[in-house]
Amino acid sequence: MTTRILEVRKGILNKNDEIAARLRARFEEAGVLAINLVSSPGSGKTALLERTLAALVARGRKVAAIVGDLETERDATRLARTGAPARQINTHGRCHLEAEMIGRQLEGWDLAALEFLFIENVGNLVCPSSYDLGEALRVVLLSVTEGEDKPLKYPGMFNSADVAVVTKIDLAGPCDYDRDAAHANIRAVRPDITIVETSARTGAGVDAWLALLDEARS
Amino acid sequence: MTTRILEVRKGILNKNDEIAARLRARFEEAGVLAINLVSSPGSGKTALLERTLAALVARGRKVAAIVGDLETERDATRLARTGAPARQINTHGRCHLEAEMIGRQLEGWDLAALEFLFIENVGNLVCPSSYDLGEALRVVLLSVTEGEDKPLKYPGMFNSADVAVVTKIDLAGPCDYDRDAAHANIRAVRPDITIVETSARTGAGVDAWLALLDEARS
Repeated sequence: MTTRILEVRKGILNKNDEIAARLRARFEEAGVLAINLVSSPGSGKTALLERTLAALVARGRKVAAIVGDLETERDATRLARTGAPARQINTHGRCHLEAEMIGRQLEGWDLAALEFLFIENVGNLVCPSSYDLGEALRVVLLSVTEGEDKPLKYPGMFNSADVAVVTKIDLAGPCDYDRDAAHANIRAVRPDITIVETSARTGAGVDAWLALLDEARS
Repeated sequence: MTTRILEVRKGILNKNDEIAARLRARFEEAGVLAINLVSSPGSGKTALLERTLAALVARGRKVAAIVGDLETERDATRLARTGAPARQINTHGRCHLEAEMIGRQLEGWDLAALEFLFIENVGNLVCPSSYDLGEALRVVLLSVTEGEDKPLKYPGMFNSADVAVVTKIDLAGPCDYDRDAAHANIRAVRPDITIVETSARTGAGVDAWLALLDEARS
């Protein structure tokens, strides 16, 4: 990489960090927990979010979601069925969300009336790791179908996360999922990280996940 | 995005395209079919490649592989067990392979003695789509575990591919894979693309995949 592009990239990251810091201050002042969900495409971010929003709405909790994709409104449509407000960002080819995009989506939302704001990032295990969105919690998903070696191959993302959720645990058998190896690999790049295992299909582990969110808010 | 970074990026892409064009000319002159495998992390690129190299080596065919990952030598080690020469590129945080990286790996290899050169890209459904590696065939993998909507959400990658391989077809049942939807979504962004369905675990579809490679070379 040339020095010039490194400098330009650094400038963009600095600008993103400044906007993210302002967002973080707004979220904290409003008392809303912002959660940035990151993973490969198809790890089950939307499915977990669907379950999570439905459970929180059923309990009378105040939640909202912002979802990022290169194209289509599918995820926001899916999530809105839970009764929680959901807004879609289309990045049109860009590989990650940036703090500025989140700021624009917040217009008209009363943050102080919310307890949880979920941000579903673009499916990408590389680029989103460099972009702070002002979140209090960065949650990386790893599905049992992806292979236990992914944390070692994509260490930047796992190292920058606060929580790891192993998803699609109902497929552990057919996929020969090796739990010890997966957890060891996650902890090799991020020691002491909290790991939860869930299945959005069966609901397994979802209570532990919700308890973790509640604890993070308190 | 600022005008400046757009210009810098365009410059990088133009430079990559020039190097890729020279690589393509070298591959064609040597009579080697270069194949660029792209997909999400964990779609099974290495597993398919393992099967493919082993089958081709067993048939006395001349094959080699270059594999890209952010970190670790794992994939090259795995692939070398097939008896085919395999070289690893570590991008150290970068989200895609570039033509220049491929050029450097070719040193010391007699391309004219090869029939097939497989290049396994970094697992990423966004960024690698913009980087030509001089390949004759770009092959996008979609595993049945990822969800049938991925081609619509990541159209750039599917649109730029020549062949789509649906992988992990042995998990179609447990994943409620909807073949009609998956094929329709792939063809919505890339009409007339060839689609093959494989399982590296059971070997299903591998013969069709090998026949396709042979046909592409002739």
